[in-house]
This record gives sequence, structure tokens and C-alpha cells, in this order.
Amino acid sequence: MSEKFQTVRGMRDFLPVEMRKKHFLEDICRQTFELYGFQPMQTPVLEDFELLAKKGSGGEAIKEEIYYFKDKSERELGLRFDLTVPFARVIATNPQLAKPFKRYQIERVYRYDRPGAQRYREFTQADIDIVGVPSILADFECIAAAIEIFRKLGLDFYIKLNNKKLLEEIAVSCGIEQSDVKNCLRSIDKLDKIGWNGVEQELKNKKLSTKILQVLKENDLKKIEKNLTEKNGLIELNELLSLLEKEKLEKFVKIDLCLARGLEYYTGNVFEVLAEGKFSCAGGGRYDKLIETYGGQPTPAIGISFGIDRILDVLNEKQKLDCFTKTKIFIVPVNGTGIEKAIEICQKIRKLEINSEIDLMKRSISKSLDYADKQKIPYIALVGENEIKAKELTIKEMKSGKQFKLKFSELEKLKEICE
Amino acid sequence: MSEKFQTVRGMRDFLPVEMRKKHFLEDICRQTFELYGFQPMQTPVLEDFELLAKKGSGGEAIKEEIYYFKDKSERELGLRFDLTVPFARVIATNPQLAKPFKRYQIERVYRYDRPGAQRYREFTQADIDIVGVPSILADFECIAAAIEIFRKLGLDFYIKLNNKKLLEEIAVSCGIEQSDVKNCLRSIDKLDKIGWNGVEQELKNKKLSTKILQVLKENDLKKIEKNLTEKNGLIELNELLSLLEKEKLEKFVKIDLCLARGLEYYTGNVFEVLAEGKFSCAGGGRYDKLIETYGGQPTPAIGISFGIDRILDVLNEKQKLDCFTKTKIFIVPVNGTGIEKAIEICQKIRKLEINSEIDLMKRSISKSLDYADKQKIPYIALVGENEIKAKELTIKEMKSGKQFKLKFSELEKLKEICE
Repeated sequence: MSEKFQTVRGMRDFLPVEMRKKHFLEDICRQTFELYGFQPMQTPVLEDFELLAKKGSGGEAIKEEIYYFKDKSERELGLRFDLTVPFARVIATNPQLAKPFKRYQIERVYRYDRPGAQRYREFTQADIDIVGVPSILADFECIAAAIEIFRKLGLDFYIKLNNKKLLEEIAVSCGIEQSDVKNCLRSIDKLDKIGWNGVEQELKNKKLSTKILQVLKENDLKKIEKNLTEKNGLIELNELLSLLEKEKLEKFVKIDLCLARGLEYYTGNVFEVLAEGKFSCAGGGRYDKLIETYGGQPTPAIGISFGIDRILDVLNEKQKLDCFTKTKIFIVPVNGTGIEKAIEICQKIRKLEINSEIDLMKRSISKSLDYADKQKIPYIALVGENEIKAKELTIKEMKSGKQFKLKFSELEKLKEICE
Repeated sequence: MSEKFQTVRGMRDFLPVEMRKKHFLEDICRQTFELYGFQPMQTPVLEDFELLAKKGSGGEAIKEEIYYFKDKSERELGLRFDLTVPFARVIATNPQLAKPFKRYQIERVYRYDRPGAQRYREFTQADIDIVGVPSILADFECIAAAIEIFRKLGLDFYIKLNNKKLLEEIAVSCGIEQSDVKNCLRSIDKLDKIGWNGVEQELKNKKLSTKILQVLKENDLKKIEKNLTEKNGLIELNELLSLLEKEKLEKFVKIDLCLARGLEYYTGNVFEVLAEGKFSCAGGGRYDKLIETYGGQPTPAIGISFGIDRILDVLNEKQKLDCFTKTKIFIVPVNGTGIEKAIEICQKIRKLEINSEIDLMKRSISKSLDYADKQKIPYIALVGENEIKAKELTIKEMKSGKQFKLKFSELEKLKEICE
């Protein structure tokens, strides 16, 4: 056995058992996105490196994680690290697209970071975005769609909400100079990684006030309001909360002033879906400046990105998510004698749009039963000499072991039986 | 406007109009593959370069077309050029997978060749493969599935059939030394590109007999049989033809002894689907040696690969393939007054699993009608002061212009209306 040919480090294959689960989840996403009026789109996996690395896009940390290379014509290329940046390129370069433009995309992205348990270098994101809508109604739509998906999946979840402008406004109200605000928030963004003490130390090292940490710890919107001179972020956040309340969705959200969302391009409301108490499964927010960054007209934009691999891991951990084969019936030519008739029957069953498989290995009945059992195919149909003579199938329901006959001329009855 | 940020050369975006068509086609493929009992799988876009470039895999010409690069740890990587080679890796490294193993995969692959009209450097293949089955029944299943798909698409098509072993046997019968056979067939494979005269000249340059060309031109299976000493290829081909005849599918196939299929890994029956008289839309064949090449057990294998982009181009050219939005109803809060009620109604309609969109732009009724018309949304629903007072929607069917009222309490009637 060659040991050389593994998957590339940090990447993985989805064999059928796992792939059926992935399809199950992706199908729920796609259905929900279409339910909310989003339209499908696709962009290439490769982009110009310059596009991916541009200032105001992902930020320095992301830039280091890009799979970068030169093609044979010395073009500098990179594998995309998210679906938002390529989408912003599309909007910037296709001004003819009518606004509002709502699109969904379920595709793979790449990050060259340290692989680990449940961290992959190739992973799938399911994104929805709305461009051209300044109204917070668009923020509401994205969050409502997210709630719908996590409800359908039966996961315990809540959504952390914050606003990037509000964070800046709080920083200013805590005595941070306007010119230091970005630098300050960059430290705040590390809270998850280095904790309160770490961030405090970093702010001190940067010679910035640590007063903001107290405010963030208190996490009290009402208390903050009094001290703010600018309240744009707060207004946006409250408007979103009010829409959610009216639709009785506020129970799914929690204000979390510490939520900074790593990517540099966010400008307004930001959110993150936490499942089963701790797993970050989706996230997004407003990025009203990104499309200009790529040479487009100033265009308000908002989106949310679902981490398909992460959600699958959480689903797998919580409950054994079983997605069996979609094959309904397994046709067995007994002792190889019935092969031609079996093919004919199988093709007729397929004409009825019933997913079916035929034994390709001339296996014995008992081996065929084993196979159908392992594959969780619900029915098997025997075609042997007796069956051909009597012009009928012997059908066995695998679960009950019940056996019955079905005339060749009545195959359409299988539609009901296999449902 | 920045002109810099285009798609990478040879690649393209799928905007919603085109993406809906792509989904339409991919959905037909997926349904048909599942109808035939194939299971889904996925492999990474990146593979070890060594795997992709290995002798016995794609061959020298393909090797030159691989997107190759080194990652930051100096690993040599490449973007896959097809789905078969990564699939063979999976089979070689997962001996636990029960055979026969039937899988489908609809994913993108990459070739760094000269981009041109209807030639892309990133394109999508839809593949089915069966491993572990020596019987020609597996060849039949692949071809039957292909016929089913092209029938469903309503395209004129036929399938060229040949056998790689037969080609070798013909070469030998025409006086080519065993050690020169591969070299001879490499020239034959260029027929499409350089024509009969070109191939003849090349054979002469290689100091090989050109007698084979006459035999290929005649394209007469019966006549050939007499002169063959080895007939393994012919037997395989005839067995496949006989299965197709029994299922009345022979009218879709034509023997074409010139069909060599570029990839080096083919070993037996090979086939290619030609649509609308000239466009190569799918192709495949037996590759019984490839899995050993990657260190696996000797395992018979066969597959066919559908070129999604090519088929889309053919569909687009033949008939205007229209795939409209799946949104069924567009909710319009009249003059912005009905916004809260409109959101409530929209969310209720979505609970009924009816795809719906709400106006996010506070547009006038006439602009909303324009929008729904352009997007081909079949219904719009108005929510204004009068509607709220009367507790009913004003619904307009866009096609007929017909208008009617629907009580807020009877929204579930929309399920029937929107069907």
C-alpha cells in the first residue's frame, strides 16, 4: 500500500456516509435561502491575489492564511478565503445588476492555518447577502433566515449581536482618540484568544486607556447610551432588536458588546450564531464600504455565512445524524439466471422514478440480503426462474422481513410501496 | 472603476440567470445518478502534485495543464484536472469500502490550457463511477444513465463506442510491434486535431505502418474480426452492444474505431457522447489498472464524466433555456405604511414553505410591479392601509393582470394558488 497518497494536509474526503449528511444540510440551506428569495450564484475558487489581499478586505491575519501561488504566466493567484470578497468583486464589476440584489452561494473556501480537530484548510460556507439596501430590514432578513435554519436543524442556539460603529462610539466615549480606535478594537478582537487580562495588558502596552474593558464587561446597552456622543451604531442595533421583537424572534438573540468579528470589512451590525452553547456556526454583518474598495459604486451590503463543516460536526456530536442511501429497491437476479429480465425490470422501475440498484456481482441471495441490509436499502426484489415463469417479482421488505409477490405488469404499485 | 479585478483568466462567474440553469442541469444529473443507485462523495480541489502527475494517470499532455504550486511548507500541490484520479486515490486508500462501490460527484476541475470560446480553465464535471465490477453490466449501467440524462434534456445525441483493447488488437493485426502499440495509438488519438493526413505523416515519421488507418476508416467490426488474433476487446464491446440491444438502447450508440479518448488510464470500453451532431458533452470508459497505480488492490473500474459547462453551452445554443426565479410571491408594503404588517405576512407565508420576497426599498407600487415583472415573480401582494383595515391582501397575478383579495386568515390558500 502506498502511504504517500493521502489527502492534502488539513483537507478531507467526504465518503458517502458523511456526504449524505452534507447534502442534507446543504439542501436545508438552499431551500431556506430560496424561501427567503435569495438567488443562486457561483464564482471561481481562484482569485487575483491582489484582490484577496487588498487593504480593507479581510485584514492582515487573513492575508497570511491565503493559499498563494503564481501560475505559468507569473500571474499572482490565491484560493479565496471567503465568499464575501469575491461577491463584492462581482457587484463592483457588474453595475448592471438590479438592486436590491439577494444572492446565495454554497461553496468551498481555503485557509492555510494550523489544521486541528474540527479545523480544516478546505471547508464549505453557505452564504446569503443582500446588496443595495440601507434599511435594517435587510439585517433582519439575514437573521430571520439564520434562525429558520437552526430551528429546522433542531439545534440549541442563540445569536450574539453587536454593532461595529457602536464599538467605535464606545471607544471614543471611553477616551480613546479617534486615530487610535482601530488599533484599540484590534486588541478587543483578541478577547476569545487571550482573555480579559491579555487584552488589558495589550492595551497598556499600546498606551491606550483600558476603561473600555469595564464597559464591555458590563454589557448594558441602556447604561452606555448616556455616555455616547455619537449614537449611530446604537440606533442601528436598536432598530434590529425592535424588528426581531415584533416577530417574536428576540428570544434567539443576545447583545454581546465584546463581539468584534475578525474581518476588517464589517461596518455596522455584526452577528454570530452559537450552537449548543459554544460552537460558532455562522457569522456575518454589514459591510457597507467593501464594494467601493473594489472600485464599485458605494453600495450598502450585509450578509451571513454558515460554516457547513462546523454545523455538521455539531450535529454529529449532538445526535447520531443518520442519512441513509436514497436507493429504494435492490434487484437481485437469482443465480445469475434472471439477469436479462432483472435488467429489464430495473430499467422499468427507474422509469417510474424509483431509485433502484441492480446486483452487478452475481451474488447469492444471502449475500445480496447482507448488502441491502448494510446499505439500508428498504426493499429487495428477486428475479429467478420461478419469478420469470410466474411473471412476478418476489419482494422482501428488509425491516419487517415481510415477503410478497408483485406482477411484472403491476410495477407501478412500487411507487406507493417505496414511498 | 477599477479594471484590475476581473475573474482570473479563463474562469467565469455564474450570475443568477446562468446559475439557475446550472442548478437545473446539476439537479437532473443528481436525480438520475440517485435513480441509478449511485452515492454522493466529495474530494478536495487540491491534491498532491505527485498523485496528479503519476505515470499511467492522465498522461503527459494533461500533466502540462495542471495548476501547480508549492505551499508555504514547500509541499508540491496541484488543482485536480479531473474527478477520476482523486476517486482512484480514495479507493486505493480506503480498502474498507464495500464493493461494488458506486459513487457520483458533481464538482469543479482545473486545466491550464488555452482558454477560448466555450473552453474554461475552471469547469464542472458530473461523474459516476462503479468500482469492483468486472462485468460489462457496469459499462451498461453507466451508458444507460447517460442516455437517460440526455433524453431528459431533450438534446439530439448519440454515443460513440470503442474499446481500448480492441484498438491495440487491431494495431497488432496491422503489423505494429507490441512495443510500438502505445506510440502508435498516441498518434491515432490526434485524429481530431491533425486529421487523417496528419496522423499518417506522424506514423511515417515514427517509422510505423500506416495500414491501421485503412482499417479504422472502414470502421467495420465484422470485417475486422477475421484478422484479429486476440479478441478480448471485441468481446467486451460486443457484450456491451448486446446488452444495449436488449434494452432497445442500441439506436443511441455508434461504433467509432477512431475514438481513443486522450487519457492514458483507459483499458477497455470507452465512450463519448456527442450532442447536436458535434459537441462532445460526456465521456468515459474502463480504467481497470488505475487503482493499482495508486497503491490499491487491483480493482476493475468504469466511469463516465459529464461536462456541465459544455452541456449548458449546447442547451443555451439550441433553445433559450429559461430558468426563472423560484420566488413565488413579492410582498409590497404600500407607501411604507404597511411595513410591519408586511413583514408579519411575509414570515407567515414563508412558514407555509412558499418562496417569498418582501420589498426592502420602500418602492412605489409601479416600481414594485416593474421589479416583479423583471424578476418573473408570478404574484405580488399589496399590504397598505386599506388592506390592513380590511384584514386582507390585494394579490395580483403578474401574467394575467388579474387581481383578487385574500383574507389574512386564509393565507394557506396561497399554497394552491402559487403552485
